[in-house]
Amino acid sequence: MAYFDNAATSWPKPEEVYKTVEDVMRNFGGNPGRSGHKMALAAARLIYDAREVLAEFFNAESPTNIVFTMNATDALNIAIKGVLRPGDHVITSSMEHNSVTRPIFAMTKYGIKWDIVKCEKDGTLDPDDVVKAIKPNTRLIAITHASNVTGTVMPIEQIGKIARERDIIFLVDAAQSAGVLEIDVQKLNIDLLAFPGHKGLYGPQGTGGLYVREGLKLAPLRHGGTGSFSEELLQPEILPDLLESGTLNTPGIAGLAAGVRFVKKIGLSNIRTFEDQLTQKFLEGLLEIDGITVYGPPRASNNRLAVVSINMKGMDSAELAYLLDSRYDIQVRPGLHCSPLAHETIGTKEQGTVRFSFSIFNTIEEVEGALFALKEISKAIS
Amino acid sequence: MAYFDNAATSWPKPEEVYKTVEDVMRNFGGNPGRSGHKMALAAARLIYDAREVLAEFFNAESPTNIVFTMNATDALNIAIKGVLRPGDHVITSSMEHNSVTRPIFAMTKYGIKWDIVKCEKDGTLDPDDVVKAIKPNTRLIAITHASNVTGTVMPIEQIGKIARERDIIFLVDAAQSAGVLEIDVQKLNIDLLAFPGHKGLYGPQGTGGLYVREGLKLAPLRHGGTGSFSEELLQPEILPDLLESGTLNTPGIAGLAAGVRFVKKIGLSNIRTFEDQLTQKFLEGLLEIDGITVYGPPRASNNRLAVVSINMKGMDSAELAYLLDSRYDIQVRPGLHCSPLAHETIGTKEQGTVRFSFSIFNTIEEVEGALFALKEISKAIS
Repeated sequence: MAYFDNAATSWPKPEEVYKTVEDVMRNFGGNPGRSGHKMALAAARLIYDAREVLAEFFNAESPTNIVFTMNATDALNIAIKGVLRPGDHVITSSMEHNSVTRPIFAMTKYGIKWDIVKCEKDGTLDPDDVVKAIKPNTRLIAITHASNVTGTVMPIEQIGKIARERDIIFLVDAAQSAGVLEIDVQKLNIDLLAFPGHKGLYGPQGTGGLYVREGLKLAPLRHGGTGSFSEELLQPEILPDLLESGTLNTPGIAGLAAGVRFVKKIGLSNIRTFEDQLTQKFLEGLLEIDGITVYGPPRASNNRLAVVSINMKGMDSAELAYLLDSRYDIQVRPGLHCSPLAHETIGTKEQGTVRFSFSIFNTIEEVEGALFALKEISKAIS
Repeated sequence: MAYFDNAATSWPKPEEVYKTVEDVMRNFGGNPGRSGHKMALAAARLIYDAREVLAEFFNAESPTNIVFTMNATDALNIAIKGVLRPGDHVITSSMEHNSVTRPIFAMTKYGIKWDIVKCEKDGTLDPDDVVKAIKPNTRLIAITHASNVTGTVMPIEQIGKIARERDIIFLVDAAQSAGVLEIDVQKLNIDLLAFPGHKGLYGPQGTGGLYVREGLKLAPLRHGGTGSFSEELLQPEILPDLLESGTLNTPGIAGLAAGVRFVKKIGLSNIRTFEDQLTQKFLEGLLEIDGITVYGPPRASNNRLAVVSINMKGMDSAELAYLLDSRYDIQVRPGLHCSPLAHETIGTKEQGTVRFSFSIFNTIEEVEGALFALKEISKAIS
């Protein structure tokens, strides 16, 4: 069996993630920040430790700049709805996931305007096109770090500079890049970084987070109990409390910290090199199979991650994915991948694509198996 | 050691909850609803199973009326912000948690008006006072099922009738009652029921949910990918997708289903009877200790849950909780419990209270141990 749906959620997780989640549930069952007793303090320390690990990982100013959320979508909603006000203008790209486009589109009801910068057919974004889209009232640039459809990496360093020079808030969706590409929020001039816990950071599902630059004020999406300033009807203004109402997912967040430690232990550059090898092997092999179209950059490089979308001539994407699963036990994702604009950009809005996405737990043999399977299927229909 | 902070989060959890979470992480690691391969379908089945279990538990019309959230606070925010529109009036009680009052207060910025019905000093709410507070533009009545400070149970059956007769939306916060009191949403005329997964339902932290009555339309708090209608910029209108963007906490939700099954196996009435015994034992014992004030209904009854707030004369609530933890290994929560209005109601806004809250895993011996400790402390300071 080969699991190639890591862009949706990574599997398996490192052994220490499983063990941490279980250990925390069994032995650290208090509610973090809600009391002063031993079990509650132990849980609060786990949460703080996770903040520290993530703050260091993304080079945030301090652990309090890391806000824990349910997933990256939750973080993107907190970010987008937290900064936009009637009359604001937003710039995004034509390669975004619905988790970016749908919250922005929802805000157009409240007098927000937006422009979608068109990317090339391989998903590439020209930073000059971002500059051209800027208006006097542009308050936010929201861009994915890497496409979940084609793996195309966006020029976020250049866009970060463009945004900072003009005092525009820069939000990066790191759904595919966190745990694979180096992200230094200060160096890259990122104001808001939304990340999932359960993909490249190898934490459990139900985790994610938002980095918020020191001094940036957001209106909270959720209001409620924070265990702090309980006497006030107003949400506390300090971070992370402002954006973290209700009981956190303590076992999940501790598991996420274990996942990040695993990533740090292996090293981002080793992960990247290994996943590049899988990607390059796959891309090269695909060239030898009749009727295959590959989307995104044609070879493993700085401009693409280990996410490869393809189609096979004469076969529906859902059918190909079904054959791979049922006959070869190979698990991939067909369809639109919640990114209709990206499919419009690459020209696959009708048929979608079949997406292969790799993790550190995949092997060259599994990739070879996938190529073998695709070759057989291609021969059978030609 | 005795853990008496179950009103914040229950601990321990049933063995099957720990095992389910681990099993799902290890063996059902796909992303539910995001693909058609075996692992994704297996995860989707787990989620659907949990919806079924919870729908049956609360007598919802169908599993699709159960929406999974990060916690009860998240569910309350989705409910309150999802139904209120400028010009609307809301009624709530003076015993609410900040997870109800803060979202409503936040909405006053958008032209929402509210009235807080004053409860008695023991937390009791008179349904006639709710009727008196109703205005022509009252759109929502939001009431806790039971106070997290005094354990006082609210007359939600009467309020449900009052609301339904007048076509007012009725939101119940079941943070303390889910898993302890019988809740039949249809019989009780509840339109929206917010519940935590990690308290009386014995699921892991990071889980909760919202029941939404069939036909009730809410504006979503979060927008994003749902794995459905991917081609649309508009959030899908069907439930639960409308209110569930982003990857769900699959292991947590499966663990929650295991928790609900545990509750069903023991039986709500058995849980209630057992917790009543602990509560009655504790309340009776407290009468024999000098300088103790007990808040809420004075004895175990239909009108109170196993949540008991006290104060000891001449001692700060935080100090008493600290002594119980450090000298006797008894874990309780001091302070305001995120419910300032409730403390105003019962007259403890300055000092807060020390809260003892029991679960099915506590024992009579632990309660006796707490009484012994309180007696010793009381003697030492008198």
